[in-house]
Amino acid sequence: MQNALNGQRVLVTQATEFMGPAFCEVFAEQGAEVVASTADLSPPGAAEELVQQAGPIDVLVANLSIVAPGTPAAEVDDDEWRRVFAALVDPLPRLTRAIVPHFLRRGGGKILVIGSASALRGMKRASTYSAARGAQLAYVQAVGVELAPKNIQVNAIAQNFVDNPTYFPPAVQANPRFQDRLAREVPLGRLVMAREDALFAAYLCSAAANCFVGQVFPISGGWATR
Amino acid sequence: MQNALNGQRVLVTQATEFMGPAFCEVFAEQGAEVVASTADLSPPGAAEELVQQAGPIDVLVANLSIVAPGTPAAEVDDDEWRRVFAALVDPLPRLTRAIVPHFLRRGGGKILVIGSASALRGMKRASTYSAARGAQLAYVQAVGVELAPKNIQVNAIAQNFVDNPTYFPPAVQANPRFQDRLAREVPLGRLVMAREDALFAAYLCSAAANCFVGQVFPISGGWATR
Amino acid sequence: MQNALNGQRVLVTQATEFMGPAFCEVFAEQGAEVVASTADLSPPGAAEELVQQAGPIDVLVANLSIVAPGTPAAEVDDDEWRRVFAALVDPLPRLTRAIVPHFLRRGGGKILVIGSASALRGMKRASTYSAARGAQLAYVQAVGVELAPKNIQVNAIAQNFVDNPTYFPPAVQANPRFQDRLAREVPLGRLVMAREDALFAAYLCSAAANCFVGQVFPISGGWATR
Amino acid sequence: MQNALNGQRVLVTQATEFMGPAFCEVFAEQGAEVVASTADLSPPGAAEELVQQAGPIDVLVANLSIVAPGTPAAEVDDDEWRRVFAALVDPLPRLTRAIVPHFLRRGGGKILVIGSASALRGMKRASTYSAARGAQLAYVQAVGVELAPKNIQVNAIAQNFVDNPTYFPPAVQANPRFQDRLAREVPLGRLVMAREDALFAAYLCSAAANCFVGQVFPISGGWATR
Repeated sequence: MQNALNGQRVLVTQATEFMGPAFCEVFAEQGAEVVASTADLSPPGAAEELVQQAGPIDVLVANLSIVAPGTPAAEVDDDEWRRVFAALVDPLPRLTRAIVPHFLRRGGGKILVIGSASALRGMKRASTYSAARGAQLAYVQAVGVELAPKNIQVNAIAQNFVDNPTYFPPAVQANPRFQDRLAREVPLGRLVMAREDALFAAYLCSAAANCFVGQVFPISGGWATR
Repeated sequence: MQNALNGQRVLVTQATEFMGPAFCEVFAEQGAEVVASTADLSPPGAAEELVQQAGPIDVLVANLSIVAPGTPAAEVDDDEWRRVFAALVDPLPRLTRAIVPHFLRRGGGKILVIGSASALRGMKRASTYSAARGAQLAYVQAVGVELAPKNIQVNAIAQNFVDNPTYFPPAVQANPRFQDRLAREVPLGRLVMAREDALFAAYLCSAAANCFVGQVFPISGGWATR
Repeated sequence: MQNALNGQRVLVTQATEFMGPAFCEVFAEQGAEVVASTADLSPPGAAEELVQQAGPIDVLVANLSIVAPGTPAAEVDDDEWRRVFAALVDPLPRLTRAIVPHFLRRGGGKILVIGSASALRGMKRASTYSAARGAQLAYVQAVGVELAPKNIQVNAIAQNFVDNPTYFPPAVQANPRFQDRLAREVPLGRLVMAREDALFAAYLCSAAANCFVGQVFPISGGWATR
Repeated sequence: MQNALNGQRVLVTQATEFMGPAFCEVFAEQGAEVVASTADLSPPGAAEELVQQAGPIDVLVANLSIVAPGTPAAEVDDDEWRRVFAALVDPLPRLTRAIVPHFLRRGGGKILVIGSASALRGMKRASTYSAARGAQLAYVQAVGVELAPKNIQVNAIAQNFVDNPTYFPPAVQANPRFQDRLAREVPLGRLVMAREDALFAAYLCSAAANCFVGQVFPISGGWATR
């Protein structure tokens, strides 16, 4: 695939974390002008400020991440819950509020949320994280249907077992127990490469993907497919 | 169906709202001792206090509701977002934290979350509500898998188009446009009766349903089925 | 749960195989008059003959089974394919054709198809079987929507890891590799008991379940939930 | 997107029907050498013969179609059932049997099945067709998991409301009742263009999509998304 994003100006949030580095590299290769933001989007007002400073944008990639706490469900406290939702969930309506008027003025646009397959299939000691990721996917479904008539496409990737420094740092990948788990639970038999994920995201950010409405695309090496 | 809940002590939250009235009536008919709570679970500490005061409980029915705002996605403000999540989402980890130690002492228990099919299928002007309901369902999936080995079953109903005073008050049902929508969008051709929903919930609260793990059961007259 | 099927006359196909024995026992306990058929439904005409001989029926339970071939996908021959579809798939439209006129005369009725979660989640060396089971579930979804306005409810269970003599005979259950697989892949940590499955089926066959339209209910100890 | 299929030799079945014309055109634009087959794959032996004559193939696109009968469920006869399964379902194991040894010799390959979203969401008067399409999707899930370790990727598109001459000929599109249905039921508000579908298929046929395992991708303008 070449030139999928020619002429597109793409804003990537948390650009140094999660899928940020791979996305920025691949999107640029595919011809995009990438606006790589490292702003912390947790504080109120941060999303609006980011959008204002970013200038004209064709595609917003909401790449939100936080290290997933491994707390047992019965020990999760309000602070953990609040912190994870502040990072993963609360920025979404603010980003929408900030960017939709801009999209309406230019006749359309795209939002791609980089979510998690942990919202599609239950995992132990991941209740806070899964819940926040579930909010993201349901949000995308609803907003996708609402904004489709305005030529704004809102979709999500729901990923797991994709190589990235936030959730699968080298120490985790080197762990034999993790390798066993990969062999046992992931039909692909390996991590999805960051580049594979980024190319699919590039496709979804391109004009070719105008036909998708509030859809969630699992990318998890077959671990969760619906 | 008779006596499905004989000898079960069931705690129902927000017992005068959403599915509360129908559930309390049907659960009692099915032999349960119902603890009907009207506590506001939004404030921190409220869930813990409720569980402490409720005494020995076999089943917790997390019946959480709030009138769904109909705000366009691009106009949702932080206050709406916070208010809806405070009502629908934040009580869940607190309820789990409070009741799981109790369940562990008695050798098991059940949590049934009364969620919404708006998290399964996108609807316009429902982004805040859908996102909060999505957090609930993903939470149930994760906690269900985690607590299954402790003989604690955590499952959810994802409903829509079920007769209840919170979301389908008489004025809505009498509206010809709503009746048209029902005929057009709901294969069942009518609202699911509160009693039908309550009987299914009673089944899921009974010992017969020990085999379900972190599962989401759509009840929406065929509007959303997966 | 008691008396869920009082006054219901339920026809169970292949009554000595798959879920047949457990269903017949539990349905009778729940007050049903059970018509237990052992007819081979593969030949054309067999379904029609069965329905004609069965007399007035309130609920048809399409309990179709065949030992699942474990052939690698690239070695499946036409004969295997034909044989499995003849047993699991081809009887469905014939049963519908035979029983719907009868249901229409009496003002309604129910069909419950006992399907498989192998149609929801991929398994190795199960391509023929999974495909046939996939045909069943999609059929139920379509017919369910079509017949709902006639007060005929058509739904399905999609099961796996449920104790039954056809797919999990004692020799399989005693196999340590199977026990490992159960521990590793099935969040419930055990087979679903035949009785648990049968009680849920009884519920779906009862008048309480009139609200479900073309819906697929996974029962697999959490192995597949959507 | 450019050059997504450079150097790929892609076999497209039923190349003059369903998505065939659009796929052949777009795949060629994307650099593929397209082998466009018009063979009737219903007779036993036809699939094997096709694969033998096609020479070295990197990707097989199983584009199988038949005009969907609109028969009410209670009137479907054995002949309709047999004819539709012969066209849509029976060729699949034969194609797999024929092409997998070839893929194994060259170290991998891809199969993309062009299926239907009618297997994901119930439609009236479509029981035969939906069932056959359901068999396809479940087959892909199973074979996808089985062949992933051999570097063979098997996936499916599940489409509806995509412009194509087989299911949405000009006369249908011009029908005001169809246009109403489109506006009411399809969030996208228009048919997906054949070209949009073809570009997504091209992506799934490319090396970039090596990470997908037995996955079903809905393309239906938001009509069905899971």
